[in-house]
Amino acid sequence: MTSPDATLPIGVFDSGVGGLTVLRALRAALPGEDFLYFGDTARVPYGSKPPALVRQFAWEISGFLLRKGVKAIVVACNTASSVALPDLAASLSVPVYGVLEPAVAAALRVEGRVGLIGTETTVQSGAYQARLARAGRAVWARPCPLFVPLVEEGLWEDGVARLVVAHYLKDAPKDLSALILGCTHYPYLKPVIAEVLPGVQLIDSAEVTARVVAEGLEARGLRNPEGAGRVVHFVTGDPGTYRVLANRLGEAAGEVHKVELGEL
Amino acid sequence: MTSPDATLPIGVFDSGVGGLTVLRALRAALPGEDFLYFGDTARVPYGSKPPALVRQFAWEISGFLLRKGVKAIVVACNTASSVALPDLAASLSVPVYGVLEPAVAAALRVEGRVGLIGTETTVQSGAYQARLARAGRAVWARPCPLFVPLVEEGLWEDGVARLVVAHYLKDAPKDLSALILGCTHYPYLKPVIAEVLPGVQLIDSAEVTARVVAEGLEARGLRNPEGAGRVVHFVTGDPGTYRVLANRLGEAAGEVHKVELGEL
Repeated sequence: MTSPDATLPIGVFDSGVGGLTVLRALRAALPGEDFLYFGDTARVPYGSKPPALVRQFAWEISGFLLRKGVKAIVVACNTASSVALPDLAASLSVPVYGVLEPAVAAALRVEGRVGLIGTETTVQSGAYQARLARAGRAVWARPCPLFVPLVEEGLWEDGVARLVVAHYLKDAPKDLSALILGCTHYPYLKPVIAEVLPGVQLIDSAEVTARVVAEGLEARGLRNPEGAGRVVHFVTGDPGTYRVLANRLGEAAGEVHKVELGEL
Repeated sequence: MTSPDATLPIGVFDSGVGGLTVLRALRAALPGEDFLYFGDTARVPYGSKPPALVRQFAWEISGFLLRKGVKAIVVACNTASSVALPDLAASLSVPVYGVLEPAVAAALRVEGRVGLIGTETTVQSGAYQARLARAGRAVWARPCPLFVPLVEEGLWEDGVARLVVAHYLKDAPKDLSALILGCTHYPYLKPVIAEVLPGVQLIDSAEVTARVVAEGLEARGLRNPEGAGRVVHFVTGDPGTYRVLANRLGEAAGEVHKVELGEL
């Protein structure tokens, strides 16, 4: 049975533009659905900020999206997923999906030792490690704070990228079989990471998350296969700058609205 | 004649911890003065954000400091100095000092071609270049977005720092005689920059700014040589994280208060 809420858009949020990789996968998996994408570009990045602060930001943004009217919320940010997800999911009136569980599930389908790279806050939260440990898996984890600025500068195919990636991954154990790219920016560095760690399966949470969201909405009667496929973007920073950066990352952002922090 | 306001503290602000290099130079030049240091750690960094947004942040923080009661404001952030300074100085009721003019004045004391490195927003604002051009100087300018995260991760003496510095400075003209370190974080990279650009005079705005502030306060009768030398810190992010990061950069932050963004 289809819920009367099925025609509402899906809310997606991230600290900035990184979550656009998740939005792209969602649109591919859910053609026809409408989306509200929220990028907190005035307060980006989240990955170097403390958990309590990121949790506060996640609450504010979720409240904003709910007031706009959404049928589900996708936390398209690994840092926010790591520190805020169980609380949000338990308290909000709509289904909430993060990027952590789908990535962990994908990693568990690969035998052997799992690696995790992410922001400082994501890795220090221990959320991925705890989940993998519960499944009896040994985990190697490493924060890579320079990856996000590297990608946002468009340097992901440059020699600098190779050196920085090699620096962070030089202590990776020889027997790693899978590596979770635990930050939405990291998929841009996939070719370089694959060069540095040949034979390791790289897990990009965007696609696996999109599949989990599609199945979840279907099960709750919340799918809208016949919508217009419209995306409206909300940013706390400058809309023009957001458009430029989104374009650099391969996403055309049409309708972009500025949200004042005081409105959150 | 000494003004009755002379016993008030001096307000100093930055996007985060970078301005602590300026605070340190100010305390050395002005022993006995009290300071309020404001680090906007919930919204850091400013250097990749658009001018209008940084200007708004600078206004909000200046208003906060004035309400707390300060006799002068030092904008210890090159990005905010580049985009907000003339407006702030023209509109506030207390003297306002930035880091741009003192650095330009120091560069002009060196003959020959001047270079500028800074954040994306600082370099794109063209504020330094316009000021140097008015003095008839040729300028080479380059934004270095990875330098701040590099320093904040404590990697300034690492091999990665050498590679990243070499990447950004590889196109520097051979005849450069001075280079303005146009971001408060960059002085930590001085040894590596000096290796890559031997013989180029590196201009650190902290010390020259402290001298200009000391002379300015003296001239206005606002010096307080007999205060307690107390520093109170205000941050928009987490006080504990701020203390850790400040320590990593060599500053002990004793009294730290959390300010909610809604209070600004």
